[in-house]
Amino acid sequence: MSEARPRVQTEPVSELTTNRLSVYLRCLNVLDAAEVRTISSQALAEQFHLNAAQIRKDLAYFGEFGVRGIGYYVKELRRHLRQILGLDRGVRIGILGAGNLGLALADYPGFREDGFAIVALFDTLKDKIGRRSRGGVQIYDIRDFKKIGRREAIRIAVIAGPAGAAQAAMNTVAAAGVRAILNFSPGTFKAPRGTKLKSMDLTVSLESLSFFLVQGEADE
Amino acid sequence: MSEARPRVQTEPVSELTTNRLSVYLRCLNVLDAAEVRTISSQALAEQFHLNAAQIRKDLAYFGEFGVRGIGYYVKELRRHLRQILGLDRGVRIGILGAGNLGLALADYPGFREDGFAIVALFDTLKDKIGRRSRGGVQIYDIRDFKKIGRREAIRIAVIAGPAGAAQAAMNTVAAAGVRAILNFSPGTFKAPRGTKLKSMDLTVSLESLSFFLVQGEADE
Repeated sequence: MSEARPRVQTEPVSELTTNRLSVYLRCLNVLDAAEVRTISSQALAEQFHLNAAQIRKDLAYFGEFGVRGIGYYVKELRRHLRQILGLDRGVRIGILGAGNLGLALADYPGFREDGFAIVALFDTLKDKIGRRSRGGVQIYDIRDFKKIGRREAIRIAVIAGPAGAAQAAMNTVAAAGVRAILNFSPGTFKAPRGTKLKSMDLTVSLESLSFFLVQGEADE
Repeated sequence: MSEARPRVQTEPVSELTTNRLSVYLRCLNVLDAAEVRTISSQALAEQFHLNAAQIRKDLAYFGEFGVRGIGYYVKELRRHLRQILGLDRGVRIGILGAGNLGLALADYPGFREDGFAIVALFDTLKDKIGRRSRGGVQIYDIRDFKKIGRREAIRIAVIAGPAGAAQAAMNTVAAAGVRAILNFSPGTFKAPRGTKLKSMDLTVSLESLSFFLVQGEADE
């Protein structure tokens, strides 16, 4: 679209790659805050325990960002990565489920800094509808999702309700034309047609820690 | 230790591998619930969009689980994976921070099913200490972490408080001898000596969805 937007290639990019781009962006945020102006892929890899060849390969896919003998310009690469990830225009998010998890996510401070805006919460319970999260996010009736979703230009829906209500919530979201879903409900769900569904399974991280505890014991 | 426990090799296993083991376990749970008795790596890969060669490689690292011409016995492989991940004995968890996120995690239904038990919440606020989560998890004074941690045999600490309090909470945890930390606070933290720190950055998943939305637009 705009001249500055890097070309988006037609081959699909794996989720592992986009996750790594997010990690690189996180590193560049740290470097930029520390007023580092340029960094080589080697130094980036060493400082953040990454793989230099992988960094070069991942970034080369989206264009020529490195400068021979200098490396990457931190501010410029950061700006490019934010464009590639679609963060430069801000991404508006609605959360379905205004329980503890939904309210915690609505006020999560990390989101705002990264270009995400939580613009609405939705619930089915009468005593929640019309109230606000501590941070000021309004709770709407889930039956108004389509109307509010359009008005607030919601592009990602977060499912934070009970597991039993998750599939219905996803269908509501898809019917309203929202095409990306981040799901926190445990269980296996079917992505509605035309939507991208990403599930956060919190147990995966705990299992990884549990594994390291077992490993540690074997070493003792 | 016990005869059935698979050998744990001395080379370090990457976090990507343990994450994949968690995913395989999740798939086997689904198959077991559907009363599937055996499955080949090929069928497992097709059904859950995984890579068959990667499955065989990951599992071969921990022993000989596959049977030629049959594949894997679902129940048996599930039991082995739970052992490898240290879930067979149950893993006891304490959560530091009894705000919305801490309370949501304490009552998250997915944990219990997978062998994790949330046994205590901790906070610094007087009006929270002594109360319980909706699911019945007691909230203790964070100053009693060491005492309660020992009594409740806490092995993993989850940091769910405000970012400003996270480093102090991690140090409290490490001083009490708890060696694994799952952190939800945004920011960059230093793992205390002798502990394994895993941070959940919720923005990574949102960025991945944002990227797919940008990609989608390019296709239209």
